Amino acid sequence: MTSRAEEVGSFCHALATELFPICRSITGQGVRQTLAILGQHLPGLTVHEVPSGTQAFDWTVPPEWNIDEAYIEDDAGNRIVDFANSNLHVVGYSVPVDVHLELDELQQHLHSLPDQPTAIPYRTSYYSPYWGFCLTEQQRRDLRPGRYHAVIRSRLEPGSLTYGELILPGREEREVFLSTYVCHPSLANNELSGPVVATALARSLMERPDRRYTYRFVFVPETIGSIVYLSRNIERLKANVIAGFNVTCVGDDRTYSYLPSRNGGTYADLAAKHALKHVAGAFREYSWLDRGSDERQYCAPGVDLPVCSIMRSKYGEYPEYHTSLDDLSLITPTGLGGAYAVLRAAIEAIESDVRPRCTVLCEPQLGKRGLYPSLSTTETTTQVADMMNLISYSDGERTLLEIAELIGAPVWRLREIAGQLQAAGLIEIS
Amino acid sequence: MTSRAEEVGSFCHALATELFPICRSITGQGVRQTLAILGQHLPGLTVHEVPSGTQAFDWTVPPEWNIDEAYIEDDAGNRIVDFANSNLHVVGYSVPVDVHLELDELQQHLHSLPDQPTAIPYRTSYYSPYWGFCLTEQQRRDLRPGRYHAVIRSRLEPGSLTYGELILPGREEREVFLSTYVCHPSLANNELSGPVVATALARSLMERPDRRYTYRFVFVPETIGSIVYLSRNIERLKANVIAGFNVTCVGDDRTYSYLPSRNGGTYADLAAKHALKHVAGAFREYSWLDRGSDERQYCAPGVDLPVCSIMRSKYGEYPEYHTSLDDLSLITPTGLGGAYAVLRAAIEAIESDVRPRCTVLCEPQLGKRGLYPSLSTTETTTQVADMMNLISYSDGERTLLEIAELIGAPVWRLREIAGQLQAAGLIEIS
Amino acid sequence: MTSRAEEVGSFCHALATELFPICRSITGQGVRQTLAILGQHLPGLTVHEVPSGTQAFDWTVPPEWNIDEAYIEDDAGNRIVDFANSNLHVVGYSVPVDVHLELDELQQHLHSLPDQPTAIPYRTSYYSPYWGFCLTEQQRRDLRPGRYHAVIRSRLEPGSLTYGELILPGREEREVFLSTYVCHPSLANNELSGPVVATALARSLMERPDRRYTYRFVFVPETIGSIVYLSRNIERLKANVIAGFNVTCVGDDRTYSYLPSRNGGTYADLAAKHALKHVAGAFREYSWLDRGSDERQYCAPGVDLPVCSIMRSKYGEYPEYHTSLDDLSLITPTGLGGAYAVLRAAIEAIESDVRPRCTVLCEPQLGKRGLYPSLSTTETTTQVADMMNLISYSDGERTLLEIAELIGAPVWRLREIAGQLQAAGLIEIS
Repeated sequence: MTSRAEEVGSFCHALATELFPICRSITGQGVRQTLAILGQHLPGLTVHEVPSGTQAFDWTVPPEWNIDEAYIEDDAGNRIVDFANSNLHVVGYSVPVDVHLELDELQQHLHSLPDQPTAIPYRTSYYSPYWGFCLTEQQRRDLRPGRYHAVIRSRLEPGSLTYGELILPGREEREVFLSTYVCHPSLANNELSGPVVATALARSLMERPDRRYTYRFVFVPETIGSIVYLSRNIERLKANVIAGFNVTCVGDDRTYSYLPSRNGGTYADLAAKHALKHVAGAFREYSWLDRGSDERQYCAPGVDLPVCSIMRSKYGEYPEYHTSLDDLSLITPTGLGGAYAVLRAAIEAIESDVRPRCTVLCEPQLGKRGLYPSLSTTETTTQVADMMNLISYSDGERTLLEIAELIGAPVWRLREIAGQLQAAGLIEIS
Repeated sequence: MTSRAEEVGSFCHALATELFPICRSITGQGVRQTLAILGQHLPGLTVHEVPSGTQAFDWTVPPEWNIDEAYIEDDAGNRIVDFANSNLHVVGYSVPVDVHLELDELQQHLHSLPDQPTAIPYRTSYYSPYWGFCLTEQQRRDLRPGRYHAVIRSRLEPGSLTYGELILPGREEREVFLSTYVCHPSLANNELSGPVVATALARSLMERPDRRYTYRFVFVPETIGSIVYLSRNIERLKANVIAGFNVTCVGDDRTYSYLPSRNGGTYADLAAKHALKHVAGAFREYSWLDRGSDERQYCAPGVDLPVCSIMRSKYGEYPEYHTSLDDLSLITPTGLGGAYAVLRAAIEAIESDVRPRCTVLCEPQLGKRGLYPSLSTTETTTQVADMMNLISYSDGERTLLEIAELIGAPVWRLREIAGQLQAAGLIEIS
Repeated sequence: MTSRAEEVGSFCHALATELFPICRSITGQGVRQTLAILGQHLPGLTVHEVPSGTQAFDWTVPPEWNIDEAYIEDDAGNRIVDFANSNLHVVGYSVPVDVHLELDELQQHLHSLPDQPTAIPYRTSYYSPYWGFCLTEQQRRDLRPGRYHAVIRSRLEPGSLTYGELILPGREEREVFLSTYVCHPSLANNELSGPVVATALARSLMERPDRRYTYRFVFVPETIGSIVYLSRNIERLKANVIAGFNVTCVGDDRTYSYLPSRNGGTYADLAAKHALKHVAGAFREYSWLDRGSDERQYCAPGVDLPVCSIMRSKYGEYPEYHTSLDDLSLITPTGLGGAYAVLRAAIEAIESDVRPRCTVLCEPQLGKRGLYPSLSTTETTTQVADMMNLISYSDGERTLLEIAELIGAPVWRLREIAGQLQAAGLIEIS
């Protein structure tokens, strides 16, 4: 990994550490606090509020959920499960409750993982009124028959759904779209890694001189947030987005993963696979059937944005997924920095992807331009081979990314050579 | 295998047992007797007679062949080969003969199989006047030098070629076409299995409520029969047939086989492979170069009907093929029922193959319609996965069969889910 | 190998032996002598002279180079390196020199191969003024410190670039194009094999009755020669050439190789692979990235002629490449004859490649035309299978080469059967 990627990884991990304790859900103060912190690093980040009850395609923005306190006390008054210890202890969107009940009744509202006895599971019930607690299997086994006091001081009230949006204009109106989600409570790989890596990518692009494309970053609650965002922006997105990436599960350092767009083969898919091959090396390739995040909305029939996912360990595929074990120790500067590097390379692949056309018929005489060694040798260097191959494929039909795939070279390296050849008048670029 | 398929397999075997002793050829009373018996199970089966001498493309309907008696006697008057014992003993379409001759001369008219000494081979000479006997290699080895009396009391006279046709109308004029042949004498897998399984398929479709497509079954002598049928019906077939199956070798229980249409990839090929994959599991895939039955005519250049074959052990590929060992013990209720089940599933795949289009943008909210579990869990059930995948691919472009192939689910299962989603207003079907 | 190919291989080897001693370069008397000898076997071969200074796309025809003598003497007057012993001893296009210098200075002008101590390397410097000697590593190690006398009596003067062209008219103006190069000094596989095999191919085609296509052979210096040729003929070539072969490295007998055209899949590629498969059997398939000869010009963007290469051991891929070890012992009658046979078969594949259409619907009745055995047997012969398969694919859309690939039979065998069927009125050919 480059030192730049390591540095970015450290920045990401520090930012994730700051955001980790906040209790986020699909609405509420947690989202606003999160966006406020991200906004400190992202000048221009705009926060949007969409009132409860707003219709978005088949969905309705739910009441806003906030929570102050939640616990279970035994009959001796001991708080045996307490939201103050972990915001995973409460089922997300739990309705308020304050009730005394027997263990048998309480069990109907408890969730634990028999196979992972030290992990608190992550559960939500956004659209069906319910209350519940999550706890470790060990805690649950210790519960003795008797009377318990279950308290959840939450509020489900008209409010709004909150999301953030950042647009970095480029020379063209055509856009690269990046989406990540800010609705998960204290969980790290899935999901604080997405917002922090997206923040790092945005910062890097702010500094990039001469952006060809416009970049649009959105920080939304998953599912309802992307649906709301689409319902307000779909025409603009369909007109302008040439490639997009759903940024999720980009924090651990065990593997790299790729999940395609619905129909595959979009510009985003090509760039993602190119970047994964040349930056990550090996990676696991999933199918659309393995999907599970906001690509479900961005690639839905009739929406069909060119959006795919570059990930580290994919949601649902690692043992700590959706449990309290997905914590800050699971994500690392190396993991975050590596994901950043691949996503950044995918973006650079798109920025580099010009269409070169050789200006002369037959091979140009590189020697007279000082671009070719004058004395023939048995071996031609890689540099010359790349240059000759690039010229050979500069037929005005193939793009640089297509040529890079044919040659097996990273497109950003070919972009540099294309610049030299353009300066020498040997290729035109469109 | 389902009990329904087992039941059908038993029906098929019983019917084959009834038909087995009849001496069939490409013309003659044997074909008529066979169609009469099939007609008892197939109300509406029409029998057509095409006069000898009728031109059909490059062919001419030959004289009608009937046979009363045939034998070889030694000089002691013993009938050492007798048609009464097996109708395979006479070369099909043998001209009449009543001649006394030496063993040397007789040998010119004998056919046996040195490698299968207990088997009587099956031989014909439809278009070149000839007479001959088939016998086991064991019988042949026992022949002693001496004088023999060869008698074939056959008649080759102007008559007609006979075939059966059954049309089951559907809501649409578009047709599914099934062809099988009734010209083989006492042979079981190749070929009484075809007519009896085709009969079972027709009976099943008669009972099916609300057929979308029209079904056309033909029971013809092989080659000359399908050519004659095409010469009389080609325009209608080319206009209406969307898929067809040549039903042959569907009786033993050793394997499943698939032989494609000439150009492959037709609707029949897609449905056949889908059914084989989901009902049979493993199957052997042949190429067009392995063809050998009436697909040769149905797929000929300029005819080009979408016809392929679903088989058990394919003609030419099993040791008993075209010998007296291909008898009623080779075909089994399991074998016949299994072939029936795959063919029936291929038909149902076609009937199920609607084109769904999701009526909402982004994913619909299944929860509010009671189609989705309200409490999120780590694992989503197969049922929900199938439904979500179906919705995700319901883009108005893909058909249900294409979607089923993408998902890896049988199309008839998706058809049920599509019905639920249609009832909920979430997809439209065309 | 056929006796015809062996005979041709012997002819080729003898011709190569005659040409071997001549000192060829990209210009000069060596090229003219070579073309004069080839012309003795190729009536109609035209020799073209293109003056130095002529512009050809991005290139300029260089001064003509000729050389009379060159040597290195030690201070005792011993000729320790002498052009008279091997024309590889002088770097091609060396400027004249007559200088006394110390060993240290001399070393700057010496080239040897440490890993191949008995081989003289082949080096050139066409476009950058330079002088130098090539010698074996053994010779070089024997050099003692002291004063040396280096003499190269070469001339670089306005003159011309010389190439040969032979056109064999056919019934059509459409052309098959064959190019080989005549610029290498005493080297055998790369490259005298090309000119001698091209000569044998031209002689064979002169004798072929009723050529459908026109054949154009060019004998050019590599790179500058093909560029000059293209600059004068590109419009005609682009209008007429349907397939072309760059004939190089066709002399040794170790392997067969194929290098595709730039975009692959041209008519030349199809014919080359067909011929290699059916005549050579196994062969090594290279990619466009492995190119290195005049296909670089013929397939350049905007030129895009359908040109590929059929080779034995490819340039750059065998240890003797571009050294004095690539001598007459490396190429053999078997190697040359085998390459000739494959190239000749590729040409015959193109000549054979008609488009057949069956004149009857359904299968024709071959029996009544004596084309089919009248008595059915379990096994059908290959001859009949080929005929039936050919008829089955004669749909007026596929060409004979496409059909041959489907059937797995050589197209020239199918061409014979097509002739029989055409004579019987069963297929039309276009």
